[in-house]
Amino acid sequence: MLPQFDDLSRFRALLSEALGPDMAARTGAEDRNGQLTKPPGALGRLEDLAIWYAGWRGDARPEIKAPQVIVFAGNHGVTAQGVSAFPAEVTVQMVANFQAGGAAINQLARAAGARMDVHALDLDRPTADFTQSPAMSEEEVVAALRAGWRAVDPAADLLVVGEMGIGNTTPAAAIACALYGGDAADWTGRGTGVDDAGLANKIRVVREGVALHAGQGDGLDVLRRLGGRELAAMAGAIAAARVLRIPVILDGFICTAAAACLDASIAGALDHAVAGHQSAEGAHGALLERLGKQPLLSLGLRLGEGSGGALAIQILKGAVACHSGMATFAEAGVAEG
Amino acid sequence: MLPQFDDLSRFRALLSEALGPDMAARTGAEDRNGQLTKPPGALGRLEDLAIWYAGWRGDARPEIKAPQVIVFAGNHGVTAQGVSAFPAEVTVQMVANFQAGGAAINQLARAAGARMDVHALDLDRPTADFTQSPAMSEEEVVAALRAGWRAVDPAADLLVVGEMGIGNTTPAAAIACALYGGDAADWTGRGTGVDDAGLANKIRVVREGVALHAGQGDGLDVLRRLGGRELAAMAGAIAAARVLRIPVILDGFICTAAAACLDASIAGALDHAVAGHQSAEGAHGALLERLGKQPLLSLGLRLGEGSGGALAIQILKGAVACHSGMATFAEAGVAEG
Repeated sequence: MLPQFDDLSRFRALLSEALGPDMAARTGAEDRNGQLTKPPGALGRLEDLAIWYAGWRGDARPEIKAPQVIVFAGNHGVTAQGVSAFPAEVTVQMVANFQAGGAAINQLARAAGARMDVHALDLDRPTADFTQSPAMSEEEVVAALRAGWRAVDPAADLLVVGEMGIGNTTPAAAIACALYGGDAADWTGRGTGVDDAGLANKIRVVREGVALHAGQGDGLDVLRRLGGRELAAMAGAIAAARVLRIPVILDGFICTAAAACLDASIAGALDHAVAGHQSAEGAHGALLERLGKQPLLSLGLRLGEGSGGALAIQILKGAVACHSGMATFAEAGVAEG
Repeated sequence: MLPQFDDLSRFRALLSEALGPDMAARTGAEDRNGQLTKPPGALGRLEDLAIWYAGWRGDARPEIKAPQVIVFAGNHGVTAQGVSAFPAEVTVQMVANFQAGGAAINQLARAAGARMDVHALDLDRPTADFTQSPAMSEEEVVAALRAGWRAVDPAADLLVVGEMGIGNTTPAAAIACALYGGDAADWTGRGTGVDDAGLANKIRVVREGVALHAGQGDGLDVLRRLGGRELAAMAGAIAAARVLRIPVILDGFICTAAAACLDASIAGALDHAVAGHQSAEGAHGALLERLGKQPLLSLGLRLGEGSGGALAIQILKGAVACHSGMATFAEAGVAEG
C-alpha cells in the first residue's frame, strides 16, 4: 500500500525513506545480459536500460505489460503577464481533446500499449501570478502533489507523466533558474512559439519571479512558489512511482523541471527515472545535464503532453524485449567468439 | 507486379525508371498536418516523417499495418585475412537462432508488429577474398540482388533490411572508401570488437582491396567487387521497395554501405529511405552524412541484423499514428492561438 501525506514535511520523509532498486535482480540481469547471443555491448544503451529496469522491478528477466501515461492540466496566473501565444481557454479545450482521444498523446499512448489518464486540476482557479506572490499556498501545493501521488496505478510497471497548461514553460523556466542559477535568459525559451518581443517579456517575468522568491527554501518550496498545479502533480506522481519502484520516463522541459524540484530536495529521488527525449525547448538539454540524464530520443518535439516520454516507452519496451526474450549462447548453440 | 531482371544493366534501368512519391498525397498530408491540434511544428521530426511516408504511400492519411523485416546472411572470403573476432561458423549458427526466434532482431521485429523473414545466401560458398579478386562475378551479384528483390512482400507498407555475416564490416568499410575516397582508416572500425592489432589488419585489408579494384565502374560494380551476398541482397530489396513505393528504414553501417551503392549508381535511389539509427561503428555517421540522411535514433547499437531499423519502426509508427489519428482544431473545438 502506498502511504499518504498531509503536508510537505511528510511528503519529504516518504520520499527520503523510499528503497532503491533490487540489487540482486540487477546483478541477475547483468549476468543474463552477458550470455545473450550478441557481441558484448552490441545493443548499446538498450542493455543499460534493460538492466536498470530489471533492478527497479526486482526481476532479472522482466516484462513491460502495464505502462501508464498520466496527463495533468493546470492554469497559471502568470499568463496575465502575456507569456503565451495561446489564450488560457486552450487548456480546458485540450483537456476535452484528451478525453475525446484526439490529441497527440492519445495516439502515442495507444501505440505504446499504455493506459492513459487525464486529470484537470482546478482549471477555473489559476495559480497566483508568481511575480506578485507564491504561485501556491502550502495547502494548494500539497493538494496538487497528492493528486499526482494518487493518480499512479500501483499495478503499473512503467510511468510517463505529461502536462497541459497554457503558459507553463514560464514557471518551468523560473524553477530551473531558481534551482540552478544563471540568468533568466539562459533558461527561457519560446514555448509554443512567442515572437522576439514575447520572449523578452517572458525573460522579464522569469527574472522578476526568481528575484521575488530567491533563497526561500528547498526544491519543493521552489515548486510551490514558482510552479503550478500540473507541475506539482507530475512531481507527486514521480515521487509515488519512486516509492512503488515503478520506473519513470521523463518527458520534456516542463516535466523535467517538476522532477528537478524533487531531485533538489531529496538525493536519489530520480534514480528510477530516465530522460525520454530532449525537447526543442532551448534549455531542456541544460536541465537534463544538471540531472545527469542522457535523453533517449532527440527528435525536435516541443509539445509536452507526455508525448516524448510516451514515444520513448517503445525504446524501453524494445530493450526489455531483447533482454528477456533473446536466447543465450548456450541455448542457441552459437560460438561466443 | 514487380518486373524482374537478369543482369546489372536491366537492374539499373528498372531503378532509374522508378516513380517518385505521390505529390498530391504529400500535399494533402502537409495540409492535414497544419490543422492538427498542436502548435505548428511541435511534433518536430515526427511531422516530416509522417508527410514523407504519406507521399510514398500515396495516402494523405496513411496507416502502418504491414511492416516487413528481412535478414540476409552471407559468408565472406575475406575472413581468411583474419578480420573478425568471431569464427565464420557463427553466421550459420546465428541463422538458426533467427529461425528459432532467439536473436535480438526477432524480439525487436515482434515488438514492432513486423513480419520477419530470414534468407541465408549460399553460406557454404563464401564470396572470394576481395584482396585477391572481385568478391563476386556478375552472375553471383545479380543472383544476390535478385534474392533481395524477390524477398520483398509487395503488400508490405514498410521495409527494414538487416544482415548477418561474420567479417562483413570489412566489405562495408571497403565500399564506403571506394565510393567516397579518403583513407581506409577513416572508414574502418572495430566491428564486433577486434583489438588494436585486429583493427590495423582490417585497415590493411580494406586498403588493399580498394587499391586493387580502384576506378572499375559505378556503385553497383563496387558492390560486386568489394561487397558480399547479404549486402547485394539488401541493395536488391531496397531497390524493389523503391519501385514498389514501400518506404524503407535503413539499419546500421553495413546496410547503409549496401544502400550507398545504389545511391552512387542511380540518383534518387534512396529517396524512399530514412536512416533508422546511427550505429556505434565509427564511420556510420560519416556515411549517413554522405547520403544526407539524419538518423532517427542514436543509442550506441552496433549489432546489425536490422536491429536499429526495427527499433525505429516504432518512431515512424508513432509519427503516422499522430498524423492520421489526431483531431483537427475544427473537429476538437480548440482555439488556434
